[in-house]
Amino acid sequence: LKISPCDLERMPQRYRAHFINSLTGFKSANLLGTISASGVTNLAMISSAFHLGADPALLGFICRPPSVPRHSLINLRETGFFTLNHCHETIFRQAHQTSARYPRTVSEFAATGLTEEYSDTHPAPYVAESRIKLGLKSLEEITIQRNETVLVIGEIVEVLLPEDTLGEDGHVHIELAESLCVSGLDHYHQTHSLGRLPYAKP
Amino acid sequence: LKISPCDLERMPQRYRAHFINSLTGFKSANLLGTISASGVTNLAMISSAFHLGADPALLGFICRPPSVPRHSLINLRETGFFTLNHCHETIFRQAHQTSARYPRTVSEFAATGLTEEYSDTHPAPYVAESRIKLGLKSLEEITIQRNETVLVIGEIVEVLLPEDTLGEDGHVHIELAESLCVSGLDHYHQTHSLGRLPYAKP
Repeated sequence: LKISPCDLERMPQRYRAHFINSLTGFKSANLLGTISASGVTNLAMISSAFHLGADPALLGFICRPPSVPRHSLINLRETGFFTLNHCHETIFRQAHQTSARYPRTVSEFAATGLTEEYSDTHPAPYVAESRIKLGLKSLEEITIQRNETVLVIGEIVEVLLPEDTLGEDGHVHIELAESLCVSGLDHYHQTHSLGRLPYAKP
Repeated sequence: LKISPCDLERMPQRYRAHFINSLTGFKSANLLGTISASGVTNLAMISSAFHLGADPALLGFICRPPSVPRHSLINLRETGFFTLNHCHETIFRQAHQTSARYPRTVSEFAATGLTEEYSDTHPAPYVAESRIKLGLKSLEEITIQRNETVLVIGEIVEVLLPEDTLGEDGHVHIELAESLCVSGLDHYHQTHSLGRLPYAKP
């Protein structure tokens, strides 16, 4: 089946959102944890976190156009720190539920029954139920003019993970921690390892 | 296990690359197809493609610092078009092999035994063996000063996919096409669906 620019043009908005969101392939499933200056926590499911560099340890994620209220982004600007927490099978329904539009005074932790956890060394809330958790410092926002999305760049400053997932060479076996992936807007998947491949040489 | 900023600092370069690359979660597994102005094709495995917006249909991917030769990026600049082709189990070893450092005069299609395929309406080469294939136009490069990576933004202008993967609401069942995901630098995974969840309301 071949979808042309005309076909794309004719797609109704919701259909198009499902279709285009499916095309890049599988995406990471993370809960973004933040806290406002006045101490209200926020939790938001994001599937756009991506690796940006190992040294310094950077990642990026995308926030929608500012016309949509983005409590996480407001909190980030107020406090400068956030967490990313991998989703696994036991919590993915609650994780998905954080995408509902709660008012800013409501914490998605309370609304979905997930538990706040704090490290002595990081101000933003972790998700206690999550197994692989990253503490990050917000470094920069880059506005992508073309569609008014915001790329947030964060530096990983602390990592909490189960000891048995950390391999000898530094590789983290996130499948052992039962981390999930997402396709499209709402489809969740477990993984099954096909193995690691050696460094490729010509 | 808690990894502190000091622990991160002390990690040897290769260990650190494996570690940090694992942390964002599962990543998409795509083959990036390009062609130079003089007609030499190039194929590169990338795990950084991410959704940027549905209308216009935009996605982004990350290219490493310019100190490393990036033939794909040079081709993109010369011709303005590229393709992304989902990896599946039958071709992931060949896909991984494209990451070896071949000289620019060598096409990774020929070197890895994957087959070039052309659409009448798109100048960049698709991977015939792939099941879900996107034709894109390069719109913009954003250099991320902090680590000199380049974010390439492309618009999806054509999509080739098996008819039975396209759902009624526009969702593409990429697991049915056996698309894979990657963790870290070299770990490949199949997926197993946990199902789709309804649009979340408070």
